[in-house]
Amino acid sequence: MKQVGILGASGYTGQELLKLLKKHAGVEVKVLNSRTYDGTKVSELYPDFEGDETYTNYTFEQINALNPDLIFSALPHRISMDAIEKLDNSIKIIDLSADYRFKDIKKYEAIYGRKHVKTAHNAVYGLPELHQAEIKQARLVANPGCYATACILAAYPIQEFAGHIIFDCKSGWSGAGKDSPYAKDPTIIKDNLVAYSITRHRHKYEIEQFVKTPLSFTPHVIDTFQGMMCTAHILLNKDITPEETLKLYVDFYKDSSFVRVSKDIPQVRHTQKTNFCQIGGFEIDESNQLVVISTIDNLIKGASGQAIENMNLMLGFASSYGLN
Amino acid sequence: MKQVGILGASGYTGQELLKLLKKHAGVEVKVLNSRTYDGTKVSELYPDFEGDETYTNYTFEQINALNPDLIFSALPHRISMDAIEKLDNSIKIIDLSADYRFKDIKKYEAIYGRKHVKTAHNAVYGLPELHQAEIKQARLVANPGCYATACILAAYPIQEFAGHIIFDCKSGWSGAGKDSPYAKDPTIIKDNLVAYSITRHRHKYEIEQFVKTPLSFTPHVIDTFQGMMCTAHILLNKDITPEETLKLYVDFYKDSSFVRVSKDIPQVRHTQKTNFCQIGGFEIDESNQLVVISTIDNLIKGASGQAIENMNLMLGFASSYGLN
Amino acid sequence: MKQVGILGASGYTGQELLKLLKKHAGVEVKVLNSRTYDGTKVSELYPDFEGDETYTNYTFEQINALNPDLIFSALPHRISMDAIEKLDNSIKIIDLSADYRFKDIKKYEAIYGRKHVKTAHNAVYGLPELHQAEIKQARLVANPGCYATACILAAYPIQEFAGHIIFDCKSGWSGAGKDSPYAKDPTIIKDNLVAYSITRHRHKYEIEQFVKTPLSFTPHVIDTFQGMMCTAHILLNKDITPEETLKLYVDFYKDSSFVRVSKDIPQVRHTQKTNFCQIGGFEIDESNQLVVISTIDNLIKGASGQAIENMNLMLGFASSYGLN
Amino acid sequence: MKQVGILGASGYTGQELLKLLKKHAGVEVKVLNSRTYDGTKVSELYPDFEGDETYTNYTFEQINALNPDLIFSALPHRISMDAIEKLDNSIKIIDLSADYRFKDIKKYEAIYGRKHVKTAHNAVYGLPELHQAEIKQARLVANPGCYATACILAAYPIQEFAGHIIFDCKSGWSGAGKDSPYAKDPTIIKDNLVAYSITRHRHKYEIEQFVKTPLSFTPHVIDTFQGMMCTAHILLNKDITPEETLKLYVDFYKDSSFVRVSKDIPQVRHTQKTNFCQIGGFEIDESNQLVVISTIDNLIKGASGQAIENMNLMLGFASSYGLN
Repeated sequence: MKQVGILGASGYTGQELLKLLKKHAGVEVKVLNSRTYDGTKVSELYPDFEGDETYTNYTFEQINALNPDLIFSALPHRISMDAIEKLDNSIKIIDLSADYRFKDIKKYEAIYGRKHVKTAHNAVYGLPELHQAEIKQARLVANPGCYATACILAAYPIQEFAGHIIFDCKSGWSGAGKDSPYAKDPTIIKDNLVAYSITRHRHKYEIEQFVKTPLSFTPHVIDTFQGMMCTAHILLNKDITPEETLKLYVDFYKDSSFVRVSKDIPQVRHTQKTNFCQIGGFEIDESNQLVVISTIDNLIKGASGQAIENMNLMLGFASSYGLN
Repeated sequence: MKQVGILGASGYTGQELLKLLKKHAGVEVKVLNSRTYDGTKVSELYPDFEGDETYTNYTFEQINALNPDLIFSALPHRISMDAIEKLDNSIKIIDLSADYRFKDIKKYEAIYGRKHVKTAHNAVYGLPELHQAEIKQARLVANPGCYATACILAAYPIQEFAGHIIFDCKSGWSGAGKDSPYAKDPTIIKDNLVAYSITRHRHKYEIEQFVKTPLSFTPHVIDTFQGMMCTAHILLNKDITPEETLKLYVDFYKDSSFVRVSKDIPQVRHTQKTNFCQIGGFEIDESNQLVVISTIDNLIKGASGQAIENMNLMLGFASSYGLN
Repeated sequence: MKQVGILGASGYTGQELLKLLKKHAGVEVKVLNSRTYDGTKVSELYPDFEGDETYTNYTFEQINALNPDLIFSALPHRISMDAIEKLDNSIKIIDLSADYRFKDIKKYEAIYGRKHVKTAHNAVYGLPELHQAEIKQARLVANPGCYATACILAAYPIQEFAGHIIFDCKSGWSGAGKDSPYAKDPTIIKDNLVAYSITRHRHKYEIEQFVKTPLSFTPHVIDTFQGMMCTAHILLNKDITPEETLKLYVDFYKDSSFVRVSKDIPQVRHTQKTNFCQIGGFEIDESNQLVVISTIDNLIKGASGQAIENMNLMLGFASSYGLN
Repeated sequence: MKQVGILGASGYTGQELLKLLKKHAGVEVKVLNSRTYDGTKVSELYPDFEGDETYTNYTFEQINALNPDLIFSALPHRISMDAIEKLDNSIKIIDLSADYRFKDIKKYEAIYGRKHVKTAHNAVYGLPELHQAEIKQARLVANPGCYATACILAAYPIQEFAGHIIFDCKSGWSGAGKDSPYAKDPTIIKDNLVAYSITRHRHKYEIEQFVKTPLSFTPHVIDTFQGMMCTAHILLNKDITPEETLKLYVDFYKDSSFVRVSKDIPQVRHTQKTNFCQIGGFEIDESNQLVVISTIDNLIKGASGQAIENMNLMLGFASSYGLN
């Protein structure tokens, strides 16, 4: 039995993580830290939660003394790195914030507006479909953003055929977090659809690390709690047939536990409350634009479920253990 | 008091039209035809409707004898033209189907899969923002499709600066009509998002008549009854600043009663249950992609409300009469 | 493998029944009759349905010749009995309409406004919690109404302590059926709550056959597709403590596969999409009014699931076979 | 122009009040107090709010020095009275908490579990339909609870004919407040219905002050933000016809600005976002049980709208000023 902990456990991501970890037979949760909610029962914040777990506010000394096998940080961007640097080297870490997602520290600092605590780092970007071997060896894994997950998986195999890719994404409002307008006043998204950060959302630059073609990114919030669709508009600049594009994806993901590829157009509900990414579409129009559509659950494959995948790889479990 | 009629009055479009016409002080509805529902009260089909109106199944002889000033055809594509050709020349016509939307008869026949009853026609495409003068003189107006309305209005002023435009559209499920899966089983769209006809939707070709740049079009259905957003991804091929793009639109629509332009990003609810089209965004990203977003109500500005605008122009009323 | 059939298969009840029967390993569906939809695929009417089944319109001669073990009639009230009387005596029958729910033929005729085809009948009222032994022997079982199921289960054990019982019930809109206003226009129940038939709903009289105390019944429709709550306000006229009332129910239902009793107040979602009835509350106020709350899924325990329970008993399967 | 203020302005009730006061042409809001959110913009807490208003944390000395004409207290029960006692006598007060709703101080203390700051008070219970004259003269008005408003209005005129009244109430989840489970996790009420405090809700005792017959009260939360229905089951003990009961109500409310009476059964949406109470039903069943149904908006007629009515009466405006 491995021992794990969560820092910043009180947000949607930490909460989903806790629920998944409780169902995982190979680990137990020893640390459930929240500075704001020290001493509060989880069920008080999440009335639907069944269990007696209580948030603590352990110091880093206390956490290091407990010596867990792995710590998840679900702390906010810009703060997470401070915490991570205080954990003992013997503890493996999965960071669900953006703090270690960028190899280029200058780029991180420009996008997130804070000086990084390190001038360089060797965190592994935790997308198992691309980096399984590295994740297995890593001490520190940067868990990908939800949009980045959906977009990279939708575009990675086709990128060398593309001149420009436009990602038009739609996400459930949980993606905006527990302190977002949608959580404060859920009536404002009812029967509504909202576009935001239409050209310079931070996930755009995260995607650009892996999809090496000019790209554009526009996100929208839909009237549901969880679930996400990426409609990838891929302007082709080489000859390829729809059938060949489908085959490219099928081949690329043939060993992936959690990516399903077919011609069928996936719907948001097809992957809600699962760790799967479903990819479909594969039609090309008269302007040589290929449409590929991917759906994931933003809270699971887009955050906590993928973190469990990474944990499984880092701790030697089967990659899908506890996720089906 | 002018006299008007509706053919194919029992669908969502005909119903919305009836509701709007009842509030219009300048007209009275003399014909409310439905072959299937002859003798049925409107309130039986639309339980929310207040009024004693009953569908009839008048013959064309009867309708011609009643000699109304104007007839709306809300009949299905491919059938509407048969009816329209039987109406007397003294009756003005607004066709809400696609039958007269294409100047190029061959194109219509290829897209809609039926031989047209005419080899040529001089119907006016009823988008008041482009064709106000022609609509005033027209005997026959082809009312635009809902997606076409949102997309053309979002792209028309900028087209000469664009190399390729991708329209990613999202519509309430009423757009799929009263016999659609969503109307048969509303639970299937609950908390869901569905992409369909991802590269060759028929409205794409309707848009191409007015937006003369390579374009792509992908529609989605959202979990609400009415409302629509068009996210236009415009790949610029000439130099222009965001401020200049905004000014282009502001100038172009300065005399339009129902188009509002500003930098603010419009949301679906901003135009729900109104005849307005709101246009905003106007940001350009690092790949020289401009994002412009338009929202309309698919049943109103996207269908019945715009039909009333056209009627107002054809019958000599102020264009916004009965629509505020 | 037993062979079964459904008459009137195209409504919500028939559809739910078909879905449950497809999961039941002991039976196969040989007849799927619908007069209106002869030749139509099920998936055309229910877009969410996976399978190639097609509605037929077999004659009674054809059905009798097929000689199925059991036929479910999901035909409308007043019509169902005509069909049932034409089936061979060798075929067991479960009638989901109200036609055989009343022992007193005159009462049936007064409530449903049609002369019964029989002057007497010996159908068993198919509530397994009350009539398990009789159901096992029956040739013809009258499947209870949804409200009747929720109310009888909520009140049966306590009735001898009660002077008057008020059943205030709330149901998902599927209870109103595929031709109801809610199915025609789902927007009218959105964010709404509707009371109807507030004193003389037909299920009141069905309940009175088993709950032998003065009673009142008021139903409401809630903004969800399926699920039901019965809030039973029981005016006590004998001394009893809350704990004793709870014990009465626990004892009464101790052998029931599908009734769960506890002090916890059940919510609609606790039994949605299951065949369970959950009963809780058991508080007494200062006016000696006991509140007992039951929840069921109106389409399952309130209709098709209970029909499967009855089938299991009639065909010799374990009562919960295929229902978990 | 009269000057008013709100204490405890950050909750749902204070927010609704602010929105209504901004539309009222006769007053201006000089105090918008919130201890927790001092310095926070309203729009930060309520993203949908348009305006630059900011919460303050004035001391009572500061508020008294500003000398407003009237202060609304939207502070929590048990705390509101502390604040109210510190306001100058020249300031009129409307308390939206329960602190002054009970004439019987001992009863208040038993129900709310705190010693009252006064041993007696002469606050007027602010239900304009019962106490219009007293409200006009009052310095301190206790604004009624939402359930109490719906129930008293549904039962007051008939009480002398009743032996027992059961109020079965259903409310939107905003009634549970900004810190409730439903606000923290709106997914738990989705497609759900929840009964709570099934026999001893505090509003029961508030109703008993005005409805002088044995009564029972059970509330439920429905899947919508705002709106409320009271289904009153009235066990008659005197002879009266349905028509006579309707006439009783019509006569009783003939001068009320905001109560509408008719035989039609009111639905929750009929009064949503309005200050109206609609009363209907008026059927009597075979057990001599009369059903009367009232609907209100719990945030408006059930709280802030009614507070405006009271303000209008206290400050000499027409009672419906600013509420239509």
